[in-house]
Amino acid sequence: MLLCDIGNTSYHFLSEYDSFKKYVENFDASEVKHKIYYISVNKEVSVSLKKLPNWIDVSTHLDKTKYYETMGVDRMMALEAVESGIIIDAGSAITVDVKRDGVFCGGFIYPGLNAMRESYQNISSALAYEFNFDIDLQTLPKNSQDAITYGYLKTLYCEVMSHKMEIILTGGDANLFVKIFKDARVDEHLVFKGMKKLIYDF
Amino acid sequence: MLLCDIGNTSYHFLSEYDSFKKYVENFDASEVKHKIYYISVNKEVSVSLKKLPNWIDVSTHLDKTKYYETMGVDRMMALEAVESGIIIDAGSAITVDVKRDGVFCGGFIYPGLNAMRESYQNISSALAYEFNFDIDLQTLPKNSQDAITYGYLKTLYCEVMSHKMEIILTGGDANLFVKIFKDARVDEHLVFKGMKKLIYDF
Repeated sequence: MLLCDIGNTSYHFLSEYDSFKKYVENFDASEVKHKIYYISVNKEVSVSLKKLPNWIDVSTHLDKTKYYETMGVDRMMALEAVESGIIIDAGSAITVDVKRDGVFCGGFIYPGLNAMRESYQNISSALAYEFNFDIDLQTLPKNSQDAITYGYLKTLYCEVMSHKMEIILTGGDANLFVKIFKDARVDEHLVFKGMKKLIYDF
Repeated sequence: MLLCDIGNTSYHFLSEYDSFKKYVENFDASEVKHKIYYISVNKEVSVSLKKLPNWIDVSTHLDKTKYYETMGVDRMMALEAVESGIIIDAGSAITVDVKRDGVFCGGFIYPGLNAMRESYQNISSALAYEFNFDIDLQTLPKNSQDAITYGYLKTLYCEVMSHKMEIILTGGDANLFVKIFKDARVDEHLVFKGMKKLIYDF
């Protein structure tokens, strides 16, 4: 079974053997002849895939009334894979969603690493630093790099920890954020797990 | 006495009678003949003012060893005005600084309103919203506008409140942020107060 999670910039595939990515801008979906189960938050790609009968939109099998209208289907799929917990999907945006005993409680959106770095750097060249993922978040900073790192990460950390739930980390930057959320479980394929669950329930 | 706090984009003046702003890009400091006590975080402006004898740099009278090298002098001045408390200066960047019994404990930097709105909007047009300052931060959001508002404000709120100290709000957006930090004391002239304190101690 071939699965595909389509974002704003890439097609993320998962086969039985491996996972790989193709850029949206130079990938021609019509060249694939296999049957592919997909979800997409990319509106343009979604429109073009509707014409290809071997591309099957898994999200049409999802009860979306459990979530909210403008919510990304990738967030919904990750939530489908979990019974209780707080899911952090660290990609170009960071989505944080809470589910308790099978019920979606709500969630929020925070800028991803690159977006936030650019944000600081656009305010002033004096704030153009890389984030320091080895920072000690228990101590208030006394240097510029840690001052922006703490601003970005401690605030997020504080909110997430306040829910006192199991943390599941997914997304392209999961392995970086686990340095901050040290007790989190990393599951790179959470969205795919949710998709599979739905496919088996078809 | 005329005071001036110079930032990246504007000269902020305070006289005995009123306060007013002039844009850096079209203000000629050499045309002012009065004696002016100033601080500046704008390197270009700082260089040009050194040639004007009626412009007096208050920061030269500050013991900077209490702070850290790359810290903005405006943050230091606001801290000089306070004995104990957590100072939120909400401008193009939001600086958060903690002082306890006269000692600077450290601080962090968070993106200001415009920088953060642009950050979300650059990630995806689906995240291009204004922030909702009337949001209820006690409830996890179930719509996109509140999801980004909560991401921006609740994270900051959570970290600031964890210090359990009096909150003093200053900067151009102080009157907006007091809707979130409801018990905060707003003091629009905190930086000027710190400057005055230093001038009287000359």
